Amino acid sequence: MIKLNENYYKVNENYLFTFVEQKRKACKRNDIINLGVGDTVLPLSKTIFCAYEKAVKEQGDIKTFKGYSPEVGYGFLRKAVADNYLQQGVYLSDDEIFINDGAKSDLFTILTLFKNVTAIIKNPVYPAYFDINAIYGNQVSFVDANKENDFLPLPQHIKSEFFGKPCLIYICSPDNPSGAVYTYEGLKKWVTYAKNSRSVIIFDSAYKDYIRGAYPKSIFEIPGADEVAIEICSLSKSANFTGVRCGYTIVKRSLVVQNHNLNQAFKRLKIASNNGISYVAQRACEAIFTQNGQNECRKNTDYYLNNVKILKDFFNKKKVYAVGGENSPYVFFKCPEKTTSLEFFEFLLNNYGIVSTPGSGFGSLGEGYIRLSGFALTHDVAKAVERMNTLF
Amino acid sequence: MIKLNENYYKVNENYLFTFVEQKRKACKRNDIINLGVGDTVLPLSKTIFCAYEKAVKEQGDIKTFKGYSPEVGYGFLRKAVADNYLQQGVYLSDDEIFINDGAKSDLFTILTLFKNVTAIIKNPVYPAYFDINAIYGNQVSFVDANKENDFLPLPQHIKSEFFGKPCLIYICSPDNPSGAVYTYEGLKKWVTYAKNSRSVIIFDSAYKDYIRGAYPKSIFEIPGADEVAIEICSLSKSANFTGVRCGYTIVKRSLVVQNHNLNQAFKRLKIASNNGISYVAQRACEAIFTQNGQNECRKNTDYYLNNVKILKDFFNKKKVYAVGGENSPYVFFKCPEKTTSLEFFEFLLNNYGIVSTPGSGFGSLGEGYIRLSGFALTHDVAKAVERMNTLF
Repeated sequence: MIKLNENYYKVNENYLFTFVEQKRKACKRNDIINLGVGDTVLPLSKTIFCAYEKAVKEQGDIKTFKGYSPEVGYGFLRKAVADNYLQQGVYLSDDEIFINDGAKSDLFTILTLFKNVTAIIKNPVYPAYFDINAIYGNQVSFVDANKENDFLPLPQHIKSEFFGKPCLIYICSPDNPSGAVYTYEGLKKWVTYAKNSRSVIIFDSAYKDYIRGAYPKSIFEIPGADEVAIEICSLSKSANFTGVRCGYTIVKRSLVVQNHNLNQAFKRLKIASNNGISYVAQRACEAIFTQNGQNECRKNTDYYLNNVKILKDFFNKKKVYAVGGENSPYVFFKCPEKTTSLEFFEFLLNNYGIVSTPGSGFGSLGEGYIRLSGFALTHDVAKAVERMNTLF
Repeated sequence: MIKLNENYYKVNENYLFTFVEQKRKACKRNDIINLGVGDTVLPLSKTIFCAYEKAVKEQGDIKTFKGYSPEVGYGFLRKAVADNYLQQGVYLSDDEIFINDGAKSDLFTILTLFKNVTAIIKNPVYPAYFDINAIYGNQVSFVDANKENDFLPLPQHIKSEFFGKPCLIYICSPDNPSGAVYTYEGLKKWVTYAKNSRSVIIFDSAYKDYIRGAYPKSIFEIPGADEVAIEICSLSKSANFTGVRCGYTIVKRSLVVQNHNLNQAFKRLKIASNNGISYVAQRACEAIFTQNGQNECRKNTDYYLNNVKILKDFFNKKKVYAVGGENSPYVFFKCPEKTTSLEFFEFLLNNYGIVSTPGSGFGSLGEGYIRLSGFALTHDVAKAVERMNTLF
């Protein structure tokens, strides 16, 4: 007999960022500075904008009109992504790249590929990983991320109960909310562990274009990752695509789980679950991977990195413990003693007009922390720092 | 232990329309007329195109740039849909409308709301209904659609094993592939049946704007449907949106299943499974619901209806049994005796250069039939009829 999936009534009704938005809207101040939800504020850059506009014009002309896109994405865009990875030394075949409408949809539907999942998820972490696994009724085991491991847990931190067992391992690097980035060695440990335990890594590289140091931007820079990892990437934060909706997921043909080829299953999933991404978004996305597009994205991420550096420098000066703020658009700082994340979030909002995100919303080990994002105008970030000057 | 969802390896590797496309591409003729996959060929109409273009311009300007859309869709579009339904006499509250990127994604993810599903699916039918249920491991019971019931089965045709049991009932009206349309009385029988059996109806209204006769365009025109039905609508076929990707799903607040409010769960699903639909698509979609937009869509559907009428008239003249062709962009005709759908599909393609869709691809009872679509240029449809003249 048909039953409801009761998990929908168990997960928090309010997704963290929906909660933050509601609080922002409810606040009566008219001088609010939003460093909360990680939404971009700069417009589309020139090359990307022009490609977007040109594609729209094609949709108004019978000679150039495009209907359904292939469910896996247009060949021109799959090729552009492959070429971009090749420049980083990662070889991908075009049919290992699947165009998505941003990371979130694929993160959700990819769980239909598996059964009896135990998800290994960092705590604190981007809350969607936990929520979607809870909805599917999956078991979740947290790995602790904290000051001691620089918010970069390693396989040795997996709870003994699940250590060595085949699991779905979520890794986001640069990380949200902490902004911490895995080194080559760190990721190599995870790849080796996944291989030995027959686990599959879901690697979220949404923030890869914020990396300036010598850190891997793709899990596929690690030898052997092609046999254990799926990489999900969004262009939201690189190219201000939060309102455009286009990204990609990489499933290598060498990813074989229990004698089955996951690339083939993922293709079947895309065909079953979507009718392609909008043509204009795919053309705009293609422009990201041109030389001009890459230069513009670099300027774009430089802008947000400069903002977050202002915040990080401030916390350093005030001797407040903070991670991130380099190679990432986020800084994650410690609230004053005896203050909870939520209390300090409300305090910052009501008394200083600054929207942040309470660390506890990312998991229990985020308690006592606040995430600030660099996705704002620089003069607003400077103003926020000025306002907080009396705080610490 | 994590396992693969083996269902992905059991469903046909080739989705029907992917198969048709591959056959089309493989055919060496250079005079092919495509009446196969239901993809639109006319460009965006003026009002809708202008709104699309204007929205893109906003995305290139820091003063008007829009980032993340609400996961449920922008208020302006939810309101435009509600106003449009009110004109048909159906009252919807804005928060009962959820913007999607076309029907297919919601058809797929909505299944995560349920467990132990038995799906009641017409045979023949749009193959996605079956495929997605197979992927989720759901039980499927077919209701026969055939000449005897004018391809419009009623609750009495449900197999006795499942009759009276709570199921998920798929109804598409106007129907794909047959083009048949339920009357008010027919839908009323389904609504009453769903209520009595505590079933939930998934109503796919993708072709509603092709209705010219006195047939219901929305399931919510039937009293009591708000307590048993979910309506999923795409704008692909009304406004040539196959490459734009925007539609909506309606879940009334009065839809309570096993004491749980489905509207609330569906909202949670949207928040978990997507980061909103592209701003420009939502603005283009809003323009569909203006008076000019509606007039343009009417002209658009008139054009395709005229095409399908040419086909239907041809089969009538030739005394070939055919359904649809009115109130629907499809005509579904009987192949010559002793010919399978697939044989006739290949024959039409290779000898007449006409791409069709084999009826057997829609289910066993589609065997012996061929679907032709009106989504083509009129002179091509006329040419196809000319070519087929010697056939029957």
